[in-house]
Amino acid sequence: MNITAAYTDLYQITMAQVYFETKPDGRAVFDYYYRHNPYNSGYSIFAGLEDVLDILETLKFSDSDILYLKEKGFENEFLEYLRNFRFRGNIRSSKEGDVVFPNRPILQVEANIIEAQIIETVLLNILNFQTLIATKASRIRRSAKDEILLDMGLRRAHATGGYYASRAAAIGGFDSTSNVKAAEDYNIPSSGTMAHSFIQSYDSELEAFRDFAKVRPENCVLLIDTYNTLKLGLPNAIKVAKEMEERGDKLLGVRLDSGDLAYLSKKTRTILDEANLEYVKIVASNQLDEYVIKSLKEQGAPIDIFGVGTNLVTGKPDAALDGVYKLSEYNGTPRIKLSENIIKVSLPFKKQVYRMVDANDMFYGADAIGLFIEDEVSQMEHPFDITKKLDLSPFEHEPLLEMVMEEGKRVVPTRTVTEISKYSQSRLEQLPNEYKRFQNPHIYKIGLSPSLKEERDALIKEHKI
Amino acid sequence: MNITAAYTDLYQITMAQVYFETKPDGRAVFDYYYRHNPYNSGYSIFAGLEDVLDILETLKFSDSDILYLKEKGFENEFLEYLRNFRFRGNIRSSKEGDVVFPNRPILQVEANIIEAQIIETVLLNILNFQTLIATKASRIRRSAKDEILLDMGLRRAHATGGYYASRAAAIGGFDSTSNVKAAEDYNIPSSGTMAHSFIQSYDSELEAFRDFAKVRPENCVLLIDTYNTLKLGLPNAIKVAKEMEERGDKLLGVRLDSGDLAYLSKKTRTILDEANLEYVKIVASNQLDEYVIKSLKEQGAPIDIFGVGTNLVTGKPDAALDGVYKLSEYNGTPRIKLSENIIKVSLPFKKQVYRMVDANDMFYGADAIGLFIEDEVSQMEHPFDITKKLDLSPFEHEPLLEMVMEEGKRVVPTRTVTEISKYSQSRLEQLPNEYKRFQNPHIYKIGLSPSLKEERDALIKEHKI
Repeated sequence: MNITAAYTDLYQITMAQVYFETKPDGRAVFDYYYRHNPYNSGYSIFAGLEDVLDILETLKFSDSDILYLKEKGFENEFLEYLRNFRFRGNIRSSKEGDVVFPNRPILQVEANIIEAQIIETVLLNILNFQTLIATKASRIRRSAKDEILLDMGLRRAHATGGYYASRAAAIGGFDSTSNVKAAEDYNIPSSGTMAHSFIQSYDSELEAFRDFAKVRPENCVLLIDTYNTLKLGLPNAIKVAKEMEERGDKLLGVRLDSGDLAYLSKKTRTILDEANLEYVKIVASNQLDEYVIKSLKEQGAPIDIFGVGTNLVTGKPDAALDGVYKLSEYNGTPRIKLSENIIKVSLPFKKQVYRMVDANDMFYGADAIGLFIEDEVSQMEHPFDITKKLDLSPFEHEPLLEMVMEEGKRVVPTRTVTEISKYSQSRLEQLPNEYKRFQNPHIYKIGLSPSLKEERDALIKEHKI
Repeated sequence: MNITAAYTDLYQITMAQVYFETKPDGRAVFDYYYRHNPYNSGYSIFAGLEDVLDILETLKFSDSDILYLKEKGFENEFLEYLRNFRFRGNIRSSKEGDVVFPNRPILQVEANIIEAQIIETVLLNILNFQTLIATKASRIRRSAKDEILLDMGLRRAHATGGYYASRAAAIGGFDSTSNVKAAEDYNIPSSGTMAHSFIQSYDSELEAFRDFAKVRPENCVLLIDTYNTLKLGLPNAIKVAKEMEERGDKLLGVRLDSGDLAYLSKKTRTILDEANLEYVKIVASNQLDEYVIKSLKEQGAPIDIFGVGTNLVTGKPDAALDGVYKLSEYNGTPRIKLSENIIKVSLPFKKQVYRMVDANDMFYGADAIGLFIEDEVSQMEHPFDITKKLDLSPFEHEPLLEMVMEEGKRVVPTRTVTEISKYSQSRLEQLPNEYKRFQNPHIYKIGLSPSLKEERDALIKEHKI
């Protein structure tokens, strides 16, 4: 499936038709934000922006899309509009890879309302998922400390969503992926070991190891749990490692894919060391996530490389980021959506977001949202609790939304996954540890400028019945 | 991203190279099966087969794939093999849409071992995900009884995995999707209503409803919770419904997307009926799943159409089916993978699976796995518990694995999503209710023919140290 402009919800096109016939020149501002960090995390890692910009620069309806919509009953004049549809709007966004927080605009679309509406679904679809997975990857990276992390989840991923999962995993801190297609297209390091089937296809495990080591001596990792890890797999791997030494090769590692990984890795390390194979690494996999890896590290499991699959690429247990796309301005006038749940009341007006940075170049723990037209935000107020205010004068104010697309054209250079990943790590280093812990992380403050809060409250009153 | 043969794990290609250099003509049989039903369900719905067959018929490495693998260090002769790579194997499979159960082969690949290995990842990727979602959809269908179900999850789906989610949802029993691209390509009914942004873009909700109803009078559903459901949205919708009546049009429905759906739907129904708008339907959405819908039905909520998003398309809370692909035969000799966890010991030999059907054409609750060469299976034994046996003579034996692809070419007619969905419903009707309940469903029996069990046990003994 190629992404075309028909990769959207039908109601976008239905609404587009109404706009087309009643107010084709309406200009809208939409905010992208989410309401809760996944995994009870204290932060999320924003990911997917480069893909969205690439998609938007070339997005159009295919001939078969138009034919389909004609069959659905859309009329010729509107179909002609769709045939010429291009996204020609502006996008301001946080940098991909930045640490982000709930209930503040991460990305802002300013465009003709028809265009802004048609792109909503694909934008949410790509950003919600990659942000979910980059956040998961970042948590696993935190658990694994400096050990190597390998993404190997493609077989359990949500079909072709796995392609984007591998990209987001790299942004969140994974070193490499098993996913050849993603590695090729996104220039991510790829790696892999061997499957049980390889060993099963031989009459003996030893023979299988020997063939593999001869043909693929570089980065050779032998899977040792097909029949019996300690009694058969490991002795066979040691035998082959010694044979490789005679040929001037070196076995990179052995892989454990079942059983008690703490116990088996310790035993394996001891036996390898006794055989003078201190250089042979231990790779472990099997239902790993940030908590299992943390536990393995705490038990002193001597694992050098963690292979993580299902829990990474499906973003378990949350499986979705609750990102939304809300209209905040139409033809220059502010717009609001009310809700009985006060946290779901949307923020009107075109806005800017400022991050407070302290004298040590660390994040203070507060992003302030102001009106776009405000020059300066010297104080922020809690969105609803009138007792909570914060003086912002001690901090450097970093504006977070930068123009990345103007009139449908990208106006910032393309960034590689490696660059984005490095940037993400540097931003995480600026975030104090209390926001990064797994248990009850500190809550990062999001506040409104006094002007924004006053205008928002006036608009709520205006709509309240 | 187009699916090419590089949409696989790197280790498949590494292993392929070793096979290529050491035993290029090896012939393998692999079984696809999973170990646990998702959601504590008593069954799963097998989905994704048609996509897999389509993909396999045309799968090849692109020029840029080959270039990438060359850069990765693979050698010319092997790259030349990959350049000419096609899948030329045989596939026997359960019918797509069938009710299936853990730990029995659902699909069997018999092919050159290199080909069988390279296709493993994409096959698992597509079947695991679509089976997960079709099963979720089937459970939601069971809750919703005869009401209309609309898939509207694309914005929270795992990127382009959402395309396949919409297909699988239709197979599991959803009536339509908001996903235009999936609807177009898979010929699924599409539908949709309107977004809050549409209403917000107008100075008044009433004006928004009026424009929408004039331009799109057919299948018109008005979203009534943007400002206040009962005090504003519903009165405005009634006003517009009356205006539509004067023009000879009919309002299809009103949509509730927040608040207490049981309370609001009852109030809404009463007020609509009092306004002589009995024909106006109530559409509800907002974090629905099989349990919420069951509860709404039990409370007598008069909802006619349920819109289900995130929980459907992400397969929450499980988010993955644990499907695997295990080598069972190589060059005519049986192959096994042992495990300390007895349930993970693989089943050797090329096999056939038989479903026991009783005199009333109902499934008895037992699938028997036999050797492919066995003519008949008159008794089945529990895979590990020697006290459990079942006499199969009272039942009709339905063989479940049918040849669907021979030498890389499809040998069965293409089936549409609608056909598969209907077939799935008919198979579910043959499954007794106790397997379909949500709480502690009856466990469907999977057994082995005495010959298969005997041969498997001999092979275990042979490998045990």
